[in-house]
Amino acid sequence: MIVVLAGGVGAAKFLEGLAAVLPPEQITVIANTGDDAEFYDLHVSPDMDTVLYTLAGIVDRERGWGIAGDTFHCLRALERLGQETWFQLGDRDLATHLTRTTRLRQGATLSEATEELRQALGVACRILPMSDGRAQTRLRTTAGIVAFQEYFVKLRQEPEVLEADFSEAAASQPASGVLKAIADADGIIVAPSNPILSIGPILAVPGIREALRNTAAPIAAISPIVGGRALKGPADRILKSLGLGASAAAVAELFRDFVDIFVLDLEDASLRDEVEGKGMKAVITQTVMSTPEVRQELARKVLEGLARK
Amino acid sequence: MIVVLAGGVGAAKFLEGLAAVLPPEQITVIANTGDDAEFYDLHVSPDMDTVLYTLAGIVDRERGWGIAGDTFHCLRALERLGQETWFQLGDRDLATHLTRTTRLRQGATLSEATEELRQALGVACRILPMSDGRAQTRLRTTAGIVAFQEYFVKLRQEPEVLEADFSEAAASQPASGVLKAIADADGIIVAPSNPILSIGPILAVPGIREALRNTAAPIAAISPIVGGRALKGPADRILKSLGLGASAAAVAELFRDFVDIFVLDLEDASLRDEVEGKGMKAVITQTVMSTPEVRQELARKVLEGLARK
Repeated sequence: MIVVLAGGVGAAKFLEGLAAVLPPEQITVIANTGDDAEFYDLHVSPDMDTVLYTLAGIVDRERGWGIAGDTFHCLRALERLGQETWFQLGDRDLATHLTRTTRLRQGATLSEATEELRQALGVACRILPMSDGRAQTRLRTTAGIVAFQEYFVKLRQEPEVLEADFSEAAASQPASGVLKAIADADGIIVAPSNPILSIGPILAVPGIREALRNTAAPIAAISPIVGGRALKGPADRILKSLGLGASAAAVAELFRDFVDIFVLDLEDASLRDEVEGKGMKAVITQTVMSTPEVRQELARKVLEGLARK
Repeated sequence: MIVVLAGGVGAAKFLEGLAAVLPPEQITVIANTGDDAEFYDLHVSPDMDTVLYTLAGIVDRERGWGIAGDTFHCLRALERLGQETWFQLGDRDLATHLTRTTRLRQGATLSEATEELRQALGVACRILPMSDGRAQTRLRTTAGIVAFQEYFVKLRQEPEVLEADFSEAAASQPASGVLKAIADADGIIVAPSNPILSIGPILAVPGIREALRNTAAPIAAISPIVGGRALKGPADRILKSLGLGASAAAVAELFRDFVDIFVLDLEDASLRDEVEGKGMKAVITQTVMSTPEVRQELARKVLEGLARK
């Protein structure tokens, strides 16, 4: 069993490659729920949905999130009724949130609701939320303290992030099965997601980081920073504003206490010594997942790295 | 101020005519909420929505309910996720239910949520739900005891109705303003709605029937039965199966304790004596509201009848 710690779009692309080179039943995803939010009293799990939609083959490839060909008639109607509509909820996408929220109100856990959605969407990978409890990330920014989605969508990641507050994640519990999946894994992969905002909340859940340190499984992380830049989103700017420096090596530093293998892009080959100086083995390969072939080749390289360890 | 007791499609058509011949600010609608239901934990008020959409000029004229040009992408997606989808919720329509439900969860009353929707949709008539409390009609049918929408939509009104159970309405309270609107009205109109299933729940709310009996305002009712047939829906079959007989005179009989003027279609002119024998004045005119002109002419005739009383 291969366990993948996952954020949203970058993780989903990588998982797509991984599920093509490995029987998907052998993949367990531990998904970030720090970016979960409520809109119109619906529980929305953006990272999990991106993973679900991508693995179900229904994701909008252009945007990387949401459902391909989705429409926004409900959202436009909400706007006409005077509701806040900065979070883009598609009509088909809404069905996921309605289904999840209904199940949560009936008393199901987020894990149970996710399991049912996964099965209904025909996704073969197991998907576990990092926590069943409320674990929403808040950010102290130059525009004040805001919830993650407010920063990410409403404010378009424009304010500078001064501090990421994972106190809800830190007060939550890992979802059932998470610690065991880490302990029993044959290999663990940290997907190329934002190390602060997507992987950070997962690591903040009590017990998860310790389990990663203690597991016998080899652990690889794929850098989401290539040539000093985030492939998507604000990871580079956030690393900088937190004083960590926007380089793949800074990401390696964040994970040095539990990661054995660090995957660098060809463009960052010069960082090999710096990364290996942190006690990790560097694997250098193409990480910019522009085509299905590259995604699969990256997955293969990471699995090889794990097998060699 | 003219007060109209209203069900769904028939009432909405009449109200459209009335709002064209009277300043709409002078109209107060008391709407049936006996057919309210929850789908995916959303509070749906089908009769109020039909009235709202019709008066806002956005109703689907072909169907008589829902929003013109609406799509059903969310519903189809819910179906793919294994949800029950027999109740037709359009994508734009969903925005109404999300907005209403959000407000109810925030602690607003149904009256307050309705008032906000009316304003957002630019409807000038005042619309009051008969009750702010739960007042869902249940029906004992040849297919068992079912909620109203289950009978009406899921079972397509096919089973015979043996008994209409308004016990929830009877245990509720009139919404704020309802009794005062009846007491202070210059005239009251019972719209051509199903007398058992649409007007019945309103009359079952404690105090409303008494207020209608006691008001100084003249009260007119428009028969929804023409030539022994309901213009829409199962009113004729229900009147028959309850042993009341499917005629306009049977409807007059149901309302004889509070109605002063009973409006018959030209086709039912022969029922004049029978109706007037019940102590009402009969007004005979075209009631089949096929065009805006007929709707307005009907409204004018009813207002004349009220003025003459």
